[in-house]
Order: sequence, then C-alpha cells, then structure tokens
Amino acid sequence: MGLSTSKPAVVALGGGHGLSASLGALRHVSDRLTAVVTVADDGGSSGRLREEIGVLPPGDLRMALAALCDDSDWGRTWSAVLQHRFATSGPLDRHAVGNLLIVALWELLDDTVSGLDWVGRLLGARGRVLPMSSVPLVVEADVRDEGAAGELRTVVGQTNVATAQGRIEQLRVEPADPPACDEALAAVREADWVVLGPGSWYSSVLVHLLVPQLSEALHETRARRCVTLNLSPDSETSGLTAVDHLEVLHKHAPGLRVDVVLADPSAVEDVEAAEAAAAAMGARLVMRQVALGDGTPRHDALRLAAAYRDVFDGVLGDVPV
Amino acid sequence: MGLSTSKPAVVALGGGHGLSASLGALRHVSDRLTAVVTVADDGGSSGRLREEIGVLPPGDLRMALAALCDDSDWGRTWSAVLQHRFATSGPLDRHAVGNLLIVALWELLDDTVSGLDWVGRLLGARGRVLPMSSVPLVVEADVRDEGAAGELRTVVGQTNVATAQGRIEQLRVEPADPPACDEALAAVREADWVVLGPGSWYSSVLVHLLVPQLSEALHETRARRCVTLNLSPDSETSGLTAVDHLEVLHKHAPGLRVDVVLADPSAVEDVEAAEAAAAAMGARLVMRQVALGDGTPRHDALRLAAAYRDVFDGVLGDVPV
Repeated sequence: MGLSTSKPAVVALGGGHGLSASLGALRHVSDRLTAVVTVADDGGSSGRLREEIGVLPPGDLRMALAALCDDSDWGRTWSAVLQHRFATSGPLDRHAVGNLLIVALWELLDDTVSGLDWVGRLLGARGRVLPMSSVPLVVEADVRDEGAAGELRTVVGQTNVATAQGRIEQLRVEPADPPACDEALAAVREADWVVLGPGSWYSSVLVHLLVPQLSEALHETRARRCVTLNLSPDSETSGLTAVDHLEVLHKHAPGLRVDVVLADPSAVEDVEAAEAAAAAMGARLVMRQVALGDGTPRHDALRLAAAYRDVFDGVLGDVPV
Repeated sequence: MGLSTSKPAVVALGGGHGLSASLGALRHVSDRLTAVVTVADDGGSSGRLREEIGVLPPGDLRMALAALCDDSDWGRTWSAVLQHRFATSGPLDRHAVGNLLIVALWELLDDTVSGLDWVGRLLGARGRVLPMSSVPLVVEADVRDEGAAGELRTVVGQTNVATAQGRIEQLRVEPADPPACDEALAAVREADWVVLGPGSWYSSVLVHLLVPQLSEALHETRARRCVTLNLSPDSETSGLTAVDHLEVLHKHAPGLRVDVVLADPSAVEDVEAAEAAAAAMGARLVMRQVALGDGTPRHDALRLAAAYRDVFDGVLGDVPV
C-alpha cells in the first residue's frame, strides 16, 4: 500500500460550464469520478444534431469529457480538437468537432455509454462521463411574469428556459419518465459523495431530479451529498439569492437530504438565512473562497478542489477569509 | 540486433482506393512507409469541405491513414470512426467523420503535416501520410471524343476527369506549379523504393508527375521505382490495355526510369508487348497473382505484400501461376 491514500468515489451532476468547472476541480480530489450530464440541450450544434440525426444532444457530454482530459500534450490536444468549432459561411458553421465525433461513435457502436467511453479513452480522461437519461429530453417550465399580476406561461426547450424572463415556478421534462442510464444509477448508488451544481440551476442542476430513476437513486444512495452554489445568478435565476437557490432545490426534492452546501462568501448575501436554508435539508453551510482572483464569477479549479477536499475530509469549519 | 532484418523505406504515391490497397500491402513489407497522396479531389465530402472551408480535400488523405491503422481494437475502431459517413436528410449527409477531424486539426494546429501526423498517432498508423501539394489542385484534361472525327474538349475537375467519356490526351493541374510538400520531397529522395499505382491512372497516379518539384524528386531520387498496374480499367481508362497504361505514363514522364512493373496476369493481355512497354522505361515486367480469389478486380493485401517483398528482394523471376 505504501503512501497511497484512498480518494473518494464521486459523482458530479450537472451540465454545461458549471459541470466543467466542477470536474476541473474534482479531478484533483477523486480517483473514481463520474459525471452525470444533462441531455436536454436543444440549442446550437447539439440542437442541430438532435434535429438532423435524432441523437442525444452531445454538447454537455463533450464539455464534460474535455474537462477531464489527461494533463498532457496528448490529452490537451484532443480536448482542444473536441472543443474546436468550425467557423464557416456554410452548414458546418459552429458545429463542435467533438459533437460530431461522439455522434459518429454512437452510430458506429450503437451504444451510448461505450461511445462516450471511447472518447474518454482518446482523451485519457480522469473519469467517466454518462448521460442522465438514455433518451433526449425536452425541458418545460411554467414561468410567472414579473410584476403585480404576473401571468403564468409555459416555456419549452432548454434554451428558452435558460433565457426566460420571469420566475420559474415549475420545471418538467418530456418524456416525464425517461429511462435513466443504468451505469449512472450504479455510480450514484456506489459513490462516496454526490455533488450537485454549480450550473444553470433549473436546466442543468434541478433537471436531474426530474428523471425518476435518477432521483430515486439520489435519494436512496448511501453517498453523502454536496450542493455547490453558483458564484452569481444567471439569466434563469436572476433575482434569486443563494437562499432562494436552496429553497428552490428543497421545493423540487423535499425528501432529499444534503450533507454540505458549499458556497463562495461573495455569493451569500445573508449567511444566517443561508445556514437555515441549508439546515432545512440537513446540511451544513461551508464557505470557502472558490472564485478566481480576477473578480469574474468563475470558479478557480484548484481553490474549488481544495474546498472539495475539505468537504470530503470533514474539515467543515470556517477558514479565515 | 538479434533476428531483426531491415525492411526498405518505401514511398507510395496515389490516391483513393488504389492507394489504400497499396498501403494495405506495403505496411507488411516496409517499416518506413510514406504515402504521398493526391489533393485534387473535388467531389463528395471532400469537395464540399474544399468549397465551404477552402482547405486541401482531406478524403484521399483520410483513406490512406485509415489503411495504415494499427491492427488492434484501438486502431481498427478509430479507423472505422474516420471512415464513418453520416447518413441524414440534412447538411451532414455523406460527410466522412475523418474528413471533419482532419480539417479541425488543420485549423487548430495551422499545419497540414502536423495535423495528419496527429491523426496518424491516433490510429497508431504504420506509416506517414503526406499531401502531394500543400495547396488544393484542380485537375484538367483534354479529352478526345470516341469516333472518327472525335472532337477535343477540356474537362475540369477530378470527378469529371475520372468519369469522362473519351480518350484523355493531356492532363494538367491548376495551379501549374503548386508548392510540393517538403516532407514528401524528402521522403521520395530518401526512399529505397518508390511505388506508383495502382489507382485511377490519370487523376490519382499520373497527377503526381504534374507537380514539378515532386516530379523532379521522383526523377532524381536514388530510390528504385515500381509501377503497379491496375487489375482492370476504370472509367478514366476504359479501352486502355496494360500496354496503353505504360505508354501513357511514359508519354507523361519520358525521362522517368522505372525498375519494375508489377502486374497481375489477368490484367495483361499481351505479355510480350507489356514487357516491351516496360523495357522502354528501363523496367522489368514482374507478374504475380495479386488479385483477390473471388474474381472481383480488387487486390489481396497479403498477395500484394508478398509480391512487393519479391520486388524489393530482387526475386523477379516468374512463379508458376
């Protein structure tokens, strides 16, 4: 055994840039890392592939894989190839090369998970990337317009939900009971820690709780659960405080017990209220400086990694800020 | 040193399926194998990429790389991915995935040769693949209509030339003096053997002699030269016999000395005339059964490999057929 210390098995749930940030940190502190990724994207390259070929939208899966690439010339080059987008005045414009590669592997191997594993092997990926559902999903939201007598309207599609003006009151997915990915369910059940967020709160984070089998696994797993708050509200959640984020999560999954809520001090307006909102889910609020030092609302991979290590090691007390 | 015997450095020139067949054989008998590949394709996925992005047509390069893939689960899978074509009712239809990947690497690295080398590394390729020119070429031919007073017309573009009805009297490329690929020139000059053909005789084989620097290297190299004849005429050369093929080559490169003309007995109608046509270029006609046993006009990789080994070892006598 020597000096080796065991690192925890971690499942990170999310999508888009939030999940990439999460994986960029977790790769340092887990040696059995699994990303479970939203498949509700309907915009951009993914949306066009979904429409033209009828496949799972590959974009969020691609970004997660790229974030896990081996830290070598080989891994970084193939990661850059995956992330590369064509810029033309023709039909290939804005297509991400990794999206096309993933779809090709799916067609060739006729197996979603195996196709993603092959891309992972190409990158020397420091973890596994799985979809939250084995079928493409459509996200729908009931959105209340701002103002006194705000009307309720239904917004369809992740892109529309992510940019909807107003307050999201209810989130749904179509189909309502999509088959989850078996390997993702197994990873959640066997994990030491499950991490939700950061990311677009409704369309990348909460959406995982709307896949019934996945929600069940998240509720039943013996893994501990960490919720990582965003550094700043995005268009989906503009006007929502950190406390609001936690309350929205609690409302969508009232039975979900959480162990730790991890937040950057800059994103918590009212610490006592946030502690109370965390406590309502059984969680302790852990505050760590995890933002980049340049003032932009982006996570610093190493600071976030250090914060996760504290969380996983049970070092939950305040550190001087 | 032990039991290792040195295998020759070989450069194979061609394009399309003919070059793939050549490489599928040569990979067994050379451990320093370089493919120099035509970049005049203007049809299909390559033609569309050339038009949309203005790059070298990647298709023939992709096929050559795929033919050199490592003979392992890894190499074969990535080769199949490269060769995979989308089949949709939208704009991705018929695009070969490897074409898109090669173009992405070119854009990312801004270096044609380096991009191809990266794909080679991905495949564990048993050789290197280089373009015959560093700029895309347009092939033009003067074609004489069949019949008594056949008119002469100019046919433009590889696809049109390859399918032109009539007799090709003159072949040109545009630009007329394209820059060759330095690495390809060096490989030709340093080779033990240079192999021309099989392949579409005008648009994949002779076209190499129309790139002045490459033609010069082919004339000046101290390497020995082998011309491998096709198993059957294609649409470009319908009506041309084996002898005609050799005479056309001789006409396009009167100063090119050839050491061996390799032919399958089934493709040589008049052995004495073929021997004479070979001799006019300084070559000996070597006849070997190199076709598949199923009667289709396709090369058998192992039979062709054995024939090349004979050629490289100087075992040029007849073997019982």
